Amino acid sequence: MSAVEIHDPTLRDGQHAVRHQLGVAALRGYAEAADAAGIPVVEVGHGNGLGASSLQVGRAAVSDDLMLSTVREALRHSRMGVFMLPGWGTSDDLRKAIAHGADVIRIGVHCTETSLAERHLGFLREAGADAHCVLMMSHMASPHELAEQAALVVGYGARAVGIMDSAGHFLPEDVTERIGAIAGAVDVPVIFHGHNNLGMAVANSVAAARAGAGILDGCARGFGAGAGNTQLEVLVPVLERSGFETGIELYGLLDAAEFAERELMPAPPVTGSLSIVSGLAGVFSGFKPQVLAESRRAGVDPRDVFFELGRRQAIAGQEDLIVDVVAELSTAKAIA
Amino acid sequence: MSAVEIHDPTLRDGQHAVRHQLGVAALRGYAEAADAAGIPVVEVGHGNGLGASSLQVGRAAVSDDLMLSTVREALRHSRMGVFMLPGWGTSDDLRKAIAHGADVIRIGVHCTETSLAERHLGFLREAGADAHCVLMMSHMASPHELAEQAALVVGYGARAVGIMDSAGHFLPEDVTERIGAIAGAVDVPVIFHGHNNLGMAVANSVAAARAGAGILDGCARGFGAGAGNTQLEVLVPVLERSGFETGIELYGLLDAAEFAERELMPAPPVTGSLSIVSGLAGVFSGFKPQVLAESRRAGVDPRDVFFELGRRQAIAGQEDLIVDVVAELSTAKAIA
Repeated sequence: MSAVEIHDPTLRDGQHAVRHQLGVAALRGYAEAADAAGIPVVEVGHGNGLGASSLQVGRAAVSDDLMLSTVREALRHSRMGVFMLPGWGTSDDLRKAIAHGADVIRIGVHCTETSLAERHLGFLREAGADAHCVLMMSHMASPHELAEQAALVVGYGARAVGIMDSAGHFLPEDVTERIGAIAGAVDVPVIFHGHNNLGMAVANSVAAARAGAGILDGCARGFGAGAGNTQLEVLVPVLERSGFETGIELYGLLDAAEFAERELMPAPPVTGSLSIVSGLAGVFSGFKPQVLAESRRAGVDPRDVFFELGRRQAIAGQEDLIVDVVAELSTAKAIA
Repeated sequence: MSAVEIHDPTLRDGQHAVRHQLGVAALRGYAEAADAAGIPVVEVGHGNGLGASSLQVGRAAVSDDLMLSTVREALRHSRMGVFMLPGWGTSDDLRKAIAHGADVIRIGVHCTETSLAERHLGFLREAGADAHCVLMMSHMASPHELAEQAALVVGYGARAVGIMDSAGHFLPEDVTERIGAIAGAVDVPVIFHGHNNLGMAVANSVAAARAGAGILDGCARGFGAGAGNTQLEVLVPVLERSGFETGIELYGLLDAAEFAERELMPAPPVTGSLSIVSGLAGVFSGFKPQVLAESRRAGVDPRDVFFELGRRQAIAGQEDLIVDVVAELSTAKAIA
């Protein structure tokens, strides 16, 4: 059996599914349940990470300070993780997280833009923090490019590096290739974070472990936007059956998931049509509300909009492209 | 691209999730949507198949006659499928189905008990019907045993043969081995029917196609009991991306799934704790209501009951074992 470390972003990535409205009792209750199950790292925060609470992406119900102190207090064995997107958060937020006792600090960047993480990773290295770096929308770069970027961030100070399948686009063979390339290029643990748009989150995570990933992410009931993340309480026993040790206790894990279903979410994630289409198109599913609104207004099919955004290689943050694409499809329809 | 034929049991296996209560408007509406999408075979019936409507497993809202005539009328291009478990249904039910214009008739048997299908498959061969045979709870037999049983049913008259992962226990490598063994032993199309207890239904189905399966089952939104079946509208585009042709039109398929979510089910299937446990234990998830009821009464953990039923190799139909197991666990607990 080889060991895999599980990282649980239920209280961070799951926030996207409830517009960042998790309250203190929910944060505390889930953190306690995850701790009791022996989950190694429990991540908490606004869905977009430290400092991101805002009118633009949604105000969180609870401040960063209160989220961090609540979860810190609830964890007796598990380490506490936080996430930050440079630009949304700043060095001040990192300082605050360290002061709150964050053990694992993850910096997320678009897969080809790792230089944006250089300063923060350098700062965290100086501070002696356990800094990770994750390359987002990783289907948009080749295995070779990802390996190069991974080597760069290790140079900047990352103690673990990996990829997020932000659009839920990968099939297992895609993951095998990319994780294999990264694992061959760095000597730190490699991370894989899946999404379930094509029903492959668990299979992709197992493929990642087999290709050399040492850290896998999963959320209770897959809690997350759209089709959701890798379902943690399915992933863990499947990993164990596949020859990987997680150190997590099954019944405790199932109990934590039941708490999450009851107290954190209105309902578990469903893989609906637009989740499938955004996964196939390779477009960040966070575009969905705006794609739906603009498509409805113009009378075009939102599925066509997603496929066209995919052809144009839209990346997270380029929501302005949605308006262009809808306008063009609408004109094309009027002429036809 | 090699071709795979999709068989859609939404209106039969999905019935388990709604205690066989689908009404005429739902049956007609979904059949029309599936037909419009170009789904080759649309299966209909009580969840347990022809003739099974009863107090014991639940009375269907609509009679077999009305189900078959409704769907027959709604299908213009798709073929109509029916399912029968020997014992629940009889030759009379098969005659009735043929008279109603059923194109594909599937006989289901426990994976080691194919002799039970001999008479019905012989009857269907005489009648010139397209008869399939599926081996249920197929994780309980070795690849070699399954291949032997498959060869037997082809001798009895089956024009296609395959396996159901009735407990949702398989991982992709298990499917590869079993489908490969069967495909090597028979010269008719091989069927795979998945369940999603371990989040692997889509990955398992792709593995089946790669190992030589020519017929794959999937249900809209995975509609089915517990964790549900393979999600059809995810499976089809993933198959296409993996090099298999289905002939199904994507947007029509997504529309059919949205109709199903809206009109057929209270909510799409969720992979809850007992679905995961029954999948791991290799126990038919249909045991769940009785396991829950007996466990609650005796104050034992239903998860322990499932794992113990798995150790005893309980097969579908042996619900009486539940009472024994609960009594023993309860006594053990009292002594401890």
